[in-house]
Amino acid sequence: MDENISTNPFADDRLREECGIFGIWGKPDAAAFVVLGLHALQHRGQEAAGVVATDGEQFYLERQEGLVGDKFSVGGPVPKLKGRNAIGHVRYSTTGGTLNRNIQPFFADVANGGIAVAHNGNLTNAIALRKQLVSKGSIFYSTSDTECIVHLIATSKYDKIVDRLVDALKQIEGAYSLVCLTRKKLIGVRDPLGVRPLVIGKLEDAYVLASETCALDIIGADYVRDVKPGEVVVISDEGEKLESYQPFPPQRQRFCIFEHIYFARPDSIIDGLGVYDVRKSIGSELAREAPVEADMVVPVPDSGVPGAIGYAEASKIPFELGIIRNHYVGRTFIEPTDHIRNLGVRLKHNANRDRIKGKRVVLVDDSIVRGTTSKKIIKMVRDAGAAEVHFRIASPPMTDPCFYGVDTPEKKNLLAANYTVAEMCRFIGADSLHFISINGLYRALRQSRRDGANTRFCDACLTGDYPTALTDRDSTVENAQLSLLAV
Amino acid sequence: MDENISTNPFADDRLREECGIFGIWGKPDAAAFVVLGLHALQHRGQEAAGVVATDGEQFYLERQEGLVGDKFSVGGPVPKLKGRNAIGHVRYSTTGGTLNRNIQPFFADVANGGIAVAHNGNLTNAIALRKQLVSKGSIFYSTSDTECIVHLIATSKYDKIVDRLVDALKQIEGAYSLVCLTRKKLIGVRDPLGVRPLVIGKLEDAYVLASETCALDIIGADYVRDVKPGEVVVISDEGEKLESYQPFPPQRQRFCIFEHIYFARPDSIIDGLGVYDVRKSIGSELAREAPVEADMVVPVPDSGVPGAIGYAEASKIPFELGIIRNHYVGRTFIEPTDHIRNLGVRLKHNANRDRIKGKRVVLVDDSIVRGTTSKKIIKMVRDAGAAEVHFRIASPPMTDPCFYGVDTPEKKNLLAANYTVAEMCRFIGADSLHFISINGLYRALRQSRRDGANTRFCDACLTGDYPTALTDRDSTVENAQLSLLAV
Amino acid sequence: MDENISTNPFADDRLREECGIFGIWGKPDAAAFVVLGLHALQHRGQEAAGVVATDGEQFYLERQEGLVGDKFSVGGPVPKLKGRNAIGHVRYSTTGGTLNRNIQPFFADVANGGIAVAHNGNLTNAIALRKQLVSKGSIFYSTSDTECIVHLIATSKYDKIVDRLVDALKQIEGAYSLVCLTRKKLIGVRDPLGVRPLVIGKLEDAYVLASETCALDIIGADYVRDVKPGEVVVISDEGEKLESYQPFPPQRQRFCIFEHIYFARPDSIIDGLGVYDVRKSIGSELAREAPVEADMVVPVPDSGVPGAIGYAEASKIPFELGIIRNHYVGRTFIEPTDHIRNLGVRLKHNANRDRIKGKRVVLVDDSIVRGTTSKKIIKMVRDAGAAEVHFRIASPPMTDPCFYGVDTPEKKNLLAANYTVAEMCRFIGADSLHFISINGLYRALRQSRRDGANTRFCDACLTGDYPTALTDRDSTVENAQLSLLAV
Amino acid sequence: MDENISTNPFADDRLREECGIFGIWGKPDAAAFVVLGLHALQHRGQEAAGVVATDGEQFYLERQEGLVGDKFSVGGPVPKLKGRNAIGHVRYSTTGGTLNRNIQPFFADVANGGIAVAHNGNLTNAIALRKQLVSKGSIFYSTSDTECIVHLIATSKYDKIVDRLVDALKQIEGAYSLVCLTRKKLIGVRDPLGVRPLVIGKLEDAYVLASETCALDIIGADYVRDVKPGEVVVISDEGEKLESYQPFPPQRQRFCIFEHIYFARPDSIIDGLGVYDVRKSIGSELAREAPVEADMVVPVPDSGVPGAIGYAEASKIPFELGIIRNHYVGRTFIEPTDHIRNLGVRLKHNANRDRIKGKRVVLVDDSIVRGTTSKKIIKMVRDAGAAEVHFRIASPPMTDPCFYGVDTPEKKNLLAANYTVAEMCRFIGADSLHFISINGLYRALRQSRRDGANTRFCDACLTGDYPTALTDRDSTVENAQLSLLAV
Repeated sequence: MDENISTNPFADDRLREECGIFGIWGKPDAAAFVVLGLHALQHRGQEAAGVVATDGEQFYLERQEGLVGDKFSVGGPVPKLKGRNAIGHVRYSTTGGTLNRNIQPFFADVANGGIAVAHNGNLTNAIALRKQLVSKGSIFYSTSDTECIVHLIATSKYDKIVDRLVDALKQIEGAYSLVCLTRKKLIGVRDPLGVRPLVIGKLEDAYVLASETCALDIIGADYVRDVKPGEVVVISDEGEKLESYQPFPPQRQRFCIFEHIYFARPDSIIDGLGVYDVRKSIGSELAREAPVEADMVVPVPDSGVPGAIGYAEASKIPFELGIIRNHYVGRTFIEPTDHIRNLGVRLKHNANRDRIKGKRVVLVDDSIVRGTTSKKIIKMVRDAGAAEVHFRIASPPMTDPCFYGVDTPEKKNLLAANYTVAEMCRFIGADSLHFISINGLYRALRQSRRDGANTRFCDACLTGDYPTALTDRDSTVENAQLSLLAV
Repeated sequence: MDENISTNPFADDRLREECGIFGIWGKPDAAAFVVLGLHALQHRGQEAAGVVATDGEQFYLERQEGLVGDKFSVGGPVPKLKGRNAIGHVRYSTTGGTLNRNIQPFFADVANGGIAVAHNGNLTNAIALRKQLVSKGSIFYSTSDTECIVHLIATSKYDKIVDRLVDALKQIEGAYSLVCLTRKKLIGVRDPLGVRPLVIGKLEDAYVLASETCALDIIGADYVRDVKPGEVVVISDEGEKLESYQPFPPQRQRFCIFEHIYFARPDSIIDGLGVYDVRKSIGSELAREAPVEADMVVPVPDSGVPGAIGYAEASKIPFELGIIRNHYVGRTFIEPTDHIRNLGVRLKHNANRDRIKGKRVVLVDDSIVRGTTSKKIIKMVRDAGAAEVHFRIASPPMTDPCFYGVDTPEKKNLLAANYTVAEMCRFIGADSLHFISINGLYRALRQSRRDGANTRFCDACLTGDYPTALTDRDSTVENAQLSLLAV
Repeated sequence: MDENISTNPFADDRLREECGIFGIWGKPDAAAFVVLGLHALQHRGQEAAGVVATDGEQFYLERQEGLVGDKFSVGGPVPKLKGRNAIGHVRYSTTGGTLNRNIQPFFADVANGGIAVAHNGNLTNAIALRKQLVSKGSIFYSTSDTECIVHLIATSKYDKIVDRLVDALKQIEGAYSLVCLTRKKLIGVRDPLGVRPLVIGKLEDAYVLASETCALDIIGADYVRDVKPGEVVVISDEGEKLESYQPFPPQRQRFCIFEHIYFARPDSIIDGLGVYDVRKSIGSELAREAPVEADMVVPVPDSGVPGAIGYAEASKIPFELGIIRNHYVGRTFIEPTDHIRNLGVRLKHNANRDRIKGKRVVLVDDSIVRGTTSKKIIKMVRDAGAAEVHFRIASPPMTDPCFYGVDTPEKKNLLAANYTVAEMCRFIGADSLHFISINGLYRALRQSRRDGANTRFCDACLTGDYPTALTDRDSTVENAQLSLLAV
Repeated sequence: MDENISTNPFADDRLREECGIFGIWGKPDAAAFVVLGLHALQHRGQEAAGVVATDGEQFYLERQEGLVGDKFSVGGPVPKLKGRNAIGHVRYSTTGGTLNRNIQPFFADVANGGIAVAHNGNLTNAIALRKQLVSKGSIFYSTSDTECIVHLIATSKYDKIVDRLVDALKQIEGAYSLVCLTRKKLIGVRDPLGVRPLVIGKLEDAYVLASETCALDIIGADYVRDVKPGEVVVISDEGEKLESYQPFPPQRQRFCIFEHIYFARPDSIIDGLGVYDVRKSIGSELAREAPVEADMVVPVPDSGVPGAIGYAEASKIPFELGIIRNHYVGRTFIEPTDHIRNLGVRLKHNANRDRIKGKRVVLVDDSIVRGTTSKKIIKMVRDAGAAEVHFRIASPPMTDPCFYGVDTPEKKNLLAANYTVAEMCRFIGADSLHFISINGLYRALRQSRRDGANTRFCDACLTGDYPTALTDRDSTVENAQLSLLAV
């Protein structure tokens, strides 16, 4: 078995969503509601948070590294960010270090006013666009793909801000949900395939835009509907308030299937499907596809819990909290010293040894990326005395990297891209290993099976079926560094 | 219903343990292991953390507000804290604000060397002792009861440090587990009733002392045994290494029953009982004592989860994650503004409305203190569309305050001290409310029933049966402020 | 007497230079030398400091509020700022608050590389340029006039960086000395009139550019020559190393006369004239123009000291330190409370009452702006018991605001623009008041008299004779706020 | 010449006073006045500052590293420090690093209340006292000698606070001026020899105590008189308000002669002598004792200025600012790298080369300690082209260390303790070197000559004539480290 895969046994092996976005129009202390919304979306990005508000005259901006609650008082007022209209952003950075200047929302003074933009997703032609913009004189202050959108808006030949935005959208490629704020408008956008989520809510008279419904719940807003793929919604104080534009020809939706499997919060509802229910159903499907004689079903917390409940219910094997997760995290991180390196995964998880000892355990987890975390967890469960460890995975094998805003490793580091299930089972040290089948996954999503020609999901990481062009990836020109300015 | 009880609807209504303690003797980079141990004990105190190490020559001290990981790199080295021997402390403050000068461990140069002390528990004659010590010229730098112990050691007429410590112990009253560090010794102490926990572990040749076994697990140490009530264990490089002293006459143990119900981590093992198992058993007992027709059993996360699993298992009603907890917390806190005050409990919890809607729900929680949190959670579940809400509590009614290191409100603010179960049910808005009976609780603890004359638990908060004198409480002298120095 | 003049008796009434600049090419640890140079130029700006270095591959940037020594170790290495080439900037902000994003040097990735720019001076058509640049899609991140220069470079149609820079220079108007850094070149520029200073030095093989010679002295560099008005000097590793360009038609120099009177450090040498000597000569001229019977000559420290020495020498009246200055300053500033407001100027100055009591005092200061500081100092000297106070000013009456980088108030707040000398004398409370005559000032500068048609100085603040167009000031369009983003 | 003397050419070679103290009783916002007073005393200690206030009920304390103005708003209110009564302290630490826990004032709850103490001076039996106090159970939290005084007060058998204080004073030995604050009293103390200064002032009805009169001036308070040697003054709201006690038998005063030469601010008045005047007189005496043919008299700024003015006046040689001092200092300090080490003294001083070139210069400085700074300054002046450099020192040779609160090096590092004047002249590189004679110094202090049996000054550093016992220095027991707790 190739040891390259597990070079750094300490590398965090979880997938990371890059962003969550939120906007509200027409509510006094708008920024306070954005802070609450971002707190509810914190699972989508913990590295940095930012809020921009406007009182119709000026914009007010705060951006900071860390959790929303590190700078903002969650539930309290935000006196510096004035006005009834605001947007916000939480992010996880895909690049090595977080650049302070990459923290969103981005703001720009443009010809007829100012605009702030917050983005969830990833552009697949950002490098090409950046080169072209720089050659014409645009000055980039970040290394973020999102800044391309802002410069495209700023340099657009159109006059009205919505026209400028649409002009920009027509040049970008990839996955994006956006919330934009001008002094007169709140604008929500979803890319033509609707890869990333964006929902519309109402709180009394105020309109809300959010990545997930859990961010509506926290402020008591009602869910109205999802922004449609390719739709531009414009909210203002005038006329109909919410106007809808469809600047792109209609296309089949390709919603990120991993939002259901892992990213979204279990209390969110996507496209009419409760995330928790889908995950429980995956567990039930897994129990049917891969039954096993065992004494208990144990989730890898927290993401494995709904699947394990489903598995337990379908298999009639008792559900037990056999692994306890330590949720406390601090500010500092340094590479561990050698002689405590072997403590590994116990920093975050500990086996409930009293309960596990001598038992046959079905472990349920959401996915395997590099396999290093799985290996350590199984070792921990065995060290606690488990008689057998059967590993069940609530997603099909992940064989291909994501280019749409999820921080996946390269193909050569994806365990399932390089090994058979039997090899993987041996590598992670389980007695048995089963992944949900792709059709089982679709059944949990209330479809009979995957039909490649008609699927409404982006499952590229499981199938290699990428729904957009990948200009930057396919570029034959060597990609120079994004900025000459060192971090 | 008396509205005094819910004056501040935002007051966090959870009980708080004051402290966790940890010590290690004879391991290079001892402080790094203490940091790991404190990380595993973080649930016992999140306000501040401190570590003292010694290399046999000098002591090295770091104390800070916040989580262990805010200052220390969890899993990494702590170069400033040199030596093979160290102790540490995490705390939650019972007083309004945290005083920086209250952060433990405390250190003092005493006649024949230096000593550092970390304390879990609460002295019941601290004010009386403080007055007496100040009158003789001791200068207090904190408002903590623990400093009394340090001054008693410093002013003792005895010569050897263990004799000084025992001299001090004989003057204090209340609950205490201590770890003390001198240049030559690591000392562990438990009060004569063994109210607070303290266990002994071994990591290769090194001895470990910790509040709970989960702190042994994180560093891979083996559990040896509990420190006995009234025992003083002394670990040094000489002779037998671990010496045991019993300076007090033997007494019946009175271990804090709430460690089992709520404080200890579910993966810890106390006195041979797995905490998770006890909690599940309480749930099962509850299901037998207070059955109800319902569609699902839903825990109030995280502390209600084991009880809910037990209830579900015993009642055959499906277990569901009907409430999702947001674990992300930041640094700032400000009183919320009026118009977002009604958001209440959703900052931390959200109902899984898709799952709950129209259902009859059994909610399982660990305890009711003031009742305000319960009220808000039930309202949240009802707002999510639950048809019925039946509230089941994994502890008997809490009728009396704790004086042994748990942050309980005064009797007048304890809901169960002032109202009948029926009144409480109405106040919190449940369809039915049941507390586990005191005998049911003892059964979950593997005893047939509570026998007041022989109980080995301190259950004073449930029975008013306090096992020690309460000198400060009973003092007829008005208790002046502890220090003239304002916070 | 109009009380508008003294509305805020606490406003600091000193003139402030906006900036000092420094660059070095070809010296290992270049950034460390820049830090030293900026330390020597600290009198030119105390609000913020920044350094950009390049190792020929990447750029490294640090910018911060406060003194150079607050962030950088003066005299120590700057490991993060790698390379043999670097520039730096100290600034005082003319706007109310310092904007972090205004701290220089500015950096931009442009079509064929990166460029950093540091600027001393002020553009008089910055608002017009900004409007035009924004309308074409440039995004501004600061409110500084300097950013216009960077965008003009970025959007220039030329290919080579020097051509782009010259293209930009031809569009800007006003006063500017610049140092620019690319990966291959250090560039120094002075505006066609040479209003602001910039000198060339050599430290072994390395070239140095600096606002004043005192910044050459601190690193032991030799003075080579001044950059000429309108000259662009380009330093690189190739060929002749220092190339000189003269892109503008030759013009008569108009060097800022207040650099001699007040801004430059007394140990600097400008155009062959020692600043200290010029100031002493002004004092001697003053003694001749405005003699008085007195017991002692007392400077208002520190700027009045050379003039007072000159006055004392010429008048044979003893020189005395009758006012002591407290140089210690901290980080915080809050408006004083009412009942200590009357303490006024003593925060910074105190009269040497033992020496002054009963004496006739000649006070020498560099200038009068609003007159409020003079008033308080004279009161302080009288309170200390002076029998007479004769005020002598080392500059002619300041009647007009500066648009070239000095923070002067509007004309309506300039005392000398609104009152006669007699009125001013009464306002400040002196027994007599005399300003050096304009011709006396020119004599101290080694010229026989001011000849308006041929003066090589910009003395607009004393004469209203502005040497450049003032496009922004004369614009009939109302000047909108520079950015919609609030500070 | 022994090179040991100049081992670290970068060591700052200035003497440092340890402390300044200030107190005020009976003025609303008392803390704001203390902050102003400390700002005026900042020259006596720049490492840390602290203020304690009381409103008669509680005490309020703020202590911090750095300048007064780093934490407190000089001239503004200090809302957290309530009450009409307050004391404060600025300090320079004599030990290697500043310990945060050493910052004064110290506060203690004692038997009948609380007391805060601020101390200027140094005890010569602090180590002996500390050992004795620790052996009886006192716990020290700092390594400061001042804490001994606090523990002696706390453990005193007397009842009233003034009696306790006097009891403590009778046990301490050395130099001390103290201000102490209780809820009912402000107490000022000077040691029996009056080594350190302390003056009484009045601001309307409020009493003020301060190290120097310049701290009275800043708040507009009137000077009343000096606290007498051995006097305890007690200020309260009752009766006569200021009561005076003389607990010690009368002794001849021995005031620190270096306060006149160097420490005190030139605008302060001590014992009826203006400090500036004394320093000018020393300069005149020097001119008489050590005349020289020269072109100019140049002070080493700032402390050499009054002496140079006096020398110039007496010698008729022109006074010139030939060396410019850079007053800007930042927060950071790191050892310089090798290749910029030779920049040396120019970080703080620069020669005015235009003025000095080719001239014969008389340099006037206040003292020579190790000689390293003098050597660098003379080199700098020569490098600037001086034809001759004649060094004149405003104090006699410093041959003995101070044990009374001044940070002098050990005898082996004092240049004058080890070399003749001729050797010293050669070492520092001057053309001639003269120190003021001891009798010349006394003449400047308005006495005819030094009379050892009757001198009212402590001039031990110049004569070795120490006026107190030096218990710690003379102890035959090896002095163990003060605390086992590492910094």
